[in-house]
Amino acid sequence: MSTLQPTPEDKFSFGLWTVGWQARDPFGDATRPEVDVVESIHKLAEMGAYGVTFHDDDVIPFGSDTTARDERIKRFRAALDETGLVVPMVTTNLFTHPVFKEGGLTANDREVRRFAMRKVMRNMDLAAELGAKTYVLWGGREGAEVDVAKDLLASLDRYAEAIDTLAQYSEDRGYGLRFALEPKPNEPRGDIFLPTIGHAIAFISRLQHKDLVGINPEVGHEQMANLNYTHGIAEAIWLGKLFHIDLNGQHGPKFDQDLVFGHGDLLQAFSTVDLLENGSLTGGPTYDGPRHFDYKPLRTEDMDGVWRSAAANMRTYLLLKERAAAFRADPEVQEALAAAKVPDLRTPTVGEGGYEELLADRSALEDFDAETVAQRGAGVTRIDQLMIEHLLGAR
Amino acid sequence: MSTLQPTPEDKFSFGLWTVGWQARDPFGDATRPEVDVVESIHKLAEMGAYGVTFHDDDVIPFGSDTTARDERIKRFRAALDETGLVVPMVTTNLFTHPVFKEGGLTANDREVRRFAMRKVMRNMDLAAELGAKTYVLWGGREGAEVDVAKDLLASLDRYAEAIDTLAQYSEDRGYGLRFALEPKPNEPRGDIFLPTIGHAIAFISRLQHKDLVGINPEVGHEQMANLNYTHGIAEAIWLGKLFHIDLNGQHGPKFDQDLVFGHGDLLQAFSTVDLLENGSLTGGPTYDGPRHFDYKPLRTEDMDGVWRSAAANMRTYLLLKERAAAFRADPEVQEALAAAKVPDLRTPTVGEGGYEELLADRSALEDFDAETVAQRGAGVTRIDQLMIEHLLGAR
Amino acid sequence: MSTLQPTPEDKFSFGLWTVGWQARDPFGDATRPEVDVVESIHKLAEMGAYGVTFHDDDVIPFGSDTTARDERIKRFRAALDETGLVVPMVTTNLFTHPVFKEGGLTANDREVRRFAMRKVMRNMDLAAELGAKTYVLWGGREGAEVDVAKDLLASLDRYAEAIDTLAQYSEDRGYGLRFALEPKPNEPRGDIFLPTIGHAIAFISRLQHKDLVGINPEVGHEQMANLNYTHGIAEAIWLGKLFHIDLNGQHGPKFDQDLVFGHGDLLQAFSTVDLLENGSLTGGPTYDGPRHFDYKPLRTEDMDGVWRSAAANMRTYLLLKERAAAFRADPEVQEALAAAKVPDLRTPTVGEGGYEELLADRSALEDFDAETVAQRGAGVTRIDQLMIEHLLGAR
Amino acid sequence: MSTLQPTPEDKFSFGLWTVGWQARDPFGDATRPEVDVVESIHKLAEMGAYGVTFHDDDVIPFGSDTTARDERIKRFRAALDETGLVVPMVTTNLFTHPVFKEGGLTANDREVRRFAMRKVMRNMDLAAELGAKTYVLWGGREGAEVDVAKDLLASLDRYAEAIDTLAQYSEDRGYGLRFALEPKPNEPRGDIFLPTIGHAIAFISRLQHKDLVGINPEVGHEQMANLNYTHGIAEAIWLGKLFHIDLNGQHGPKFDQDLVFGHGDLLQAFSTVDLLENGSLTGGPTYDGPRHFDYKPLRTEDMDGVWRSAAANMRTYLLLKERAAAFRADPEVQEALAAAKVPDLRTPTVGEGGYEELLADRSALEDFDAETVAQRGAGVTRIDQLMIEHLLGAR
Repeated sequence: MSTLQPTPEDKFSFGLWTVGWQARDPFGDATRPEVDVVESIHKLAEMGAYGVTFHDDDVIPFGSDTTARDERIKRFRAALDETGLVVPMVTTNLFTHPVFKEGGLTANDREVRRFAMRKVMRNMDLAAELGAKTYVLWGGREGAEVDVAKDLLASLDRYAEAIDTLAQYSEDRGYGLRFALEPKPNEPRGDIFLPTIGHAIAFISRLQHKDLVGINPEVGHEQMANLNYTHGIAEAIWLGKLFHIDLNGQHGPKFDQDLVFGHGDLLQAFSTVDLLENGSLTGGPTYDGPRHFDYKPLRTEDMDGVWRSAAANMRTYLLLKERAAAFRADPEVQEALAAAKVPDLRTPTVGEGGYEELLADRSALEDFDAETVAQRGAGVTRIDQLMIEHLLGAR
Repeated sequence: MSTLQPTPEDKFSFGLWTVGWQARDPFGDATRPEVDVVESIHKLAEMGAYGVTFHDDDVIPFGSDTTARDERIKRFRAALDETGLVVPMVTTNLFTHPVFKEGGLTANDREVRRFAMRKVMRNMDLAAELGAKTYVLWGGREGAEVDVAKDLLASLDRYAEAIDTLAQYSEDRGYGLRFALEPKPNEPRGDIFLPTIGHAIAFISRLQHKDLVGINPEVGHEQMANLNYTHGIAEAIWLGKLFHIDLNGQHGPKFDQDLVFGHGDLLQAFSTVDLLENGSLTGGPTYDGPRHFDYKPLRTEDMDGVWRSAAANMRTYLLLKERAAAFRADPEVQEALAAAKVPDLRTPTVGEGGYEELLADRSALEDFDAETVAQRGAGVTRIDQLMIEHLLGAR
Repeated sequence: MSTLQPTPEDKFSFGLWTVGWQARDPFGDATRPEVDVVESIHKLAEMGAYGVTFHDDDVIPFGSDTTARDERIKRFRAALDETGLVVPMVTTNLFTHPVFKEGGLTANDREVRRFAMRKVMRNMDLAAELGAKTYVLWGGREGAEVDVAKDLLASLDRYAEAIDTLAQYSEDRGYGLRFALEPKPNEPRGDIFLPTIGHAIAFISRLQHKDLVGINPEVGHEQMANLNYTHGIAEAIWLGKLFHIDLNGQHGPKFDQDLVFGHGDLLQAFSTVDLLENGSLTGGPTYDGPRHFDYKPLRTEDMDGVWRSAAANMRTYLLLKERAAAFRADPEVQEALAAAKVPDLRTPTVGEGGYEELLADRSALEDFDAETVAQRGAGVTRIDQLMIEHLLGAR
Repeated sequence: MSTLQPTPEDKFSFGLWTVGWQARDPFGDATRPEVDVVESIHKLAEMGAYGVTFHDDDVIPFGSDTTARDERIKRFRAALDETGLVVPMVTTNLFTHPVFKEGGLTANDREVRRFAMRKVMRNMDLAAELGAKTYVLWGGREGAEVDVAKDLLASLDRYAEAIDTLAQYSEDRGYGLRFALEPKPNEPRGDIFLPTIGHAIAFISRLQHKDLVGINPEVGHEQMANLNYTHGIAEAIWLGKLFHIDLNGQHGPKFDQDLVFGHGDLLQAFSTVDLLENGSLTGGPTYDGPRHFDYKPLRTEDMDGVWRSAAANMRTYLLLKERAAAFRADPEVQEALAAAKVPDLRTPTVGEGGYEELLADRSALEDFDAETVAQRGAGVTRIDQLMIEHLLGAR
């Protein structure tokens, strides 16, 4: 079916570290060879992707000198030019090298913090040069294993200082970057700071440059805390903070699986796509940024499996998009939503008369017949089953 | 030991619904008789408590007429007067009656929303009359089981409308209340809106009356998502949003256990008390509000067990407070913290020269010797074991 | 589609407590009226169900005298006769009445244990009379909240004593019942004894009547511990212990949701149906007992929603059965399984020559080329995506 | 305090891979140098340990030729001789090399399975030579990510075939080894076969050599599924299957943390030590095998932190042992246990007259006064608080 063939208009992007993952895990050595980023760019372009993203060290190995660095960037740009892929987002690796073992931007050791800052700034220069619009910060090493061995408030002070400084730098240099914090509850640290969508946005509310900073929530990261990802991004949209998105799959609270999108909690993948593409049930804002896959091809696979998994992300997304469109267009679904009074939630609870009018309305309290109103069914089951049948392609 | 005897100065408060819980659970009938709130007030006062808190329906049964209502309030006030207990916080029951089955302030049914508003406002009147400072809102029924059967953005609109209206009402009436939202990830709803400390504070950031609204985080609620409670309240303190606190115990992601404080994750209970009493490791704000217990006496217990469990909350808190004070006062702990560079995190990463100075500092990037710095141990294990030994009373 | 209309040949059975659940939860009162079991039987028969199951107290209220009891049973039997529904399984309520608060068969109080035994035996008499083949034991109150307040080994002694006594009673009376233990990790107790499929079967291995005892695993109960249900029942089948099955839905480690089957982890629901209907990937035993739904209609629903939810269980099962059949029949799937060497796992690792032959085979160690073999891809991703597309009805 | 100084009589053993862990994690490179096993042996001996354990590849790098192998073993034995440390347990690494990516003993690829068998057999020869009594099998790669891409029943066939063959080999060679399976729910595989204590023992019940096979349960592995470790090992003891034990710490369902023992769920660490040292509450079997620590020193630490963490395991264990002894010896605890009828659980429910006597006992059913009996409190809270106070060293 033609709509299942990805095109750049679908805005699918991939982290170079995804297809490039060599599959080293905590109990095992790499199972796949290093992949040349140039090959990845070409392969992804052939499949219909729109963009690629990267950590500095994905393109330029840690510790490269200036010559090696320039050479790497040149080859990388050439591949972009050849394929037409764009770089909508860039990020920094502040977690692989052992120097970041106790933290990057919030390390106790000020020397480490300063190095981390410079590493980010250097890569922001490159991001701007490549035309990236979003700069992601995943603080995988910002955290602790022992509550009373880390100054929790000072950590937040330093985190805020860092992000405000980086935002100022972007503004001063005219980079026009927006920053997206990526929350995660744990792994590799026992507890990571800003563990969920909520904690990250709350933190942002105190920043000086709060308008430049939003979030990049990842499906699996929220589900590692058994939180509902769709609910989470709905709140982020409501707050104007969904700056970027990381799509993948996860089977609940366990290690970070980074499965192919949809290959985890499929019902939640459906509601996520429905929200991104169609907005809230009665309309409202959708998401128009890149559909970015941040996943890991299974460690069992060879390169054939790697490329299949990249394609699987896009195809599953497009299938869910089709199913969601059919769900919305089904008159019985619309009727069921209306019967369940879903659209009525748009009506303000308090009328134009403000709370005084509400206080004067005896039907709202004194004459309210709770027992009778309580008997009304909410009509959720009907919608639920319609959703399942649309998802299964059975309607 | 004298410091283990609670006194009102310790500011221990209890929800009347805690010792009054009749122990009805999803699979079983009540195992205990109804407890007269007057008896509870006297018992708690004898034990050294400072205050009691309540939902409207705890004191005045749902559906009471005005005469019955006044009578109930009179007896309640008399008990307060006799004992000297205060009412630092009041809240509303928007979850027990079946009329709230689909939500209270965010129900699809506007009639239900309006009734919910009036129920809160009526109890705010009483709260103000009793001198309460904090009004808690736990939205236990605000949520959903099916993602695509609820308008997630409209829900947040209505939630915000409700809270801003209530805040305005308090201001206009001169009640001087501060509002504290109580997050919870799930139960009784499949997913509750504002599931964590973070999500609640993020939501508040968009309110008109955001300064009047903070949070009332409960130990077990965060731990149901396997989130670190101490980290969570540290962020709330950092954001000036820790308006009230609910102490209890929980064994990880399962049903809401509401155990006695400390009788769950004891290490986290220790770090929580340490943070509340002593502030962050290098100082900073502490929490001076009520130490409020929101727990359920085990369903297996008779009333003797109930009163023992109330005492256990206070005694365990005081024991942990003693252990935390000793931990902080131990010179070896201070030395270990210094060796781990914990105090250095107070120093800004960027100096007075701003980021330009940082960019000019070659030692921060060009001459930074990552390999050498990476070899420095972070010294966490030593602090960790000192903590365990203080906690076990072994130092 | 005709195959989506349930018929008794599909062997769908329902607990009477499911459609009859009045929706009382830990934070709320009942939202629905009591349902007459006779009405439920007629409704379920009309929808195409095959059988009903019950706890003693579902049919005969706790404490009924002999006359009332006989009357209830008579009406119940009449409804069965009128509809042709069978009673394949019966169980006992050892959890609702407060007398069981500290346990039933493993209560510390011997009087309670003896009452529990008699309550089970009385209902076994009825089960046999009604022709039931399976007797389920869910020990919801057998457990503890405090590890050092319960004798964990004596608990297992009493549990084993009870089950062996009941099995002996069934044998002596010629009832021919098989017993099925239903594991659950927690709720309503903090920790329930025999928390998973594995723990229950391990326990059975020490019983005297171990051949008469198997398990009745419930989807949601395993998923509350984030365990893979399909893996669990595969092991139970392998051990010949899958005596009965409870189908429903759950969203990971939280309170027991008892959702409609499939309305939780849909991928696992698919693999469960595939295993039950089609056996292991290369054949092997299937499950031919009742497809029993043990779920709770959402508390938000009225009776219309209740009956819709009952239908939804059956229809979702049948849809998944269709999808699984198509998956198995797809030549590309078979080719992908072969390419992944799935069928080769049937070949014994050690040949007829036993381990001596293996020791003599230099290609197995001395000349084994690990590096080369390691490069072979396992071909899992291809199967994975074929599964998703079949599930979504896209192939 | 003298009892807190470990001695070989305490039977503390360590995996060489614990202190030797170089701290490579899924997001980061090694932070510590390789540690010579000879140094580890000497260090551990100095600290008071009793034994060390190892995977083949810990002592002899994968792919070593015979000469290198012999040299490694010689140095290793010399270190044992110099220190007097024993080797109570040995195991095999079937997870690090990429050849095992799809499994070891249950890989689809028969060549891999045969290599895995030979790798185990070769190391069993060494284990026997070194006098080990226990051979552990952790099947970290035996599992799957996709339910319908692995033959679940054939996997169990091959697993059983492998273990029975290995047991036969041990018997035939006169090695006298006992085998201990180590369950884990997930990580590195999405789902690991035999995910819990229960599933492993259930599996064993079908083996031909079932008497030679037991389990080696790890604290954190059960807690990753939020299961109660103490309950789990109690069942294993009841079934005679606790052949070995892995002690460490974990904070609930997340990645495998392998923290120092006690530095996770401290209450459960207490009850575990109490059970191992003192048996069930009214007596019964204890555990007399090695107290084996399988943990990982925090990645943040240098070698000083590594050795501190090794000492911390032993010291925390000894502290908990002291606290447990005091708890048991406290007359108030004994009185509280008696008041809670804990010892009464030892009394069989059915008397010598068998169930006929029970059926004839009208007080057990017809005249049983459920309402009155239900009013008896179970007395758990009192014991709970006594436990907390003993644990905190406050009694």
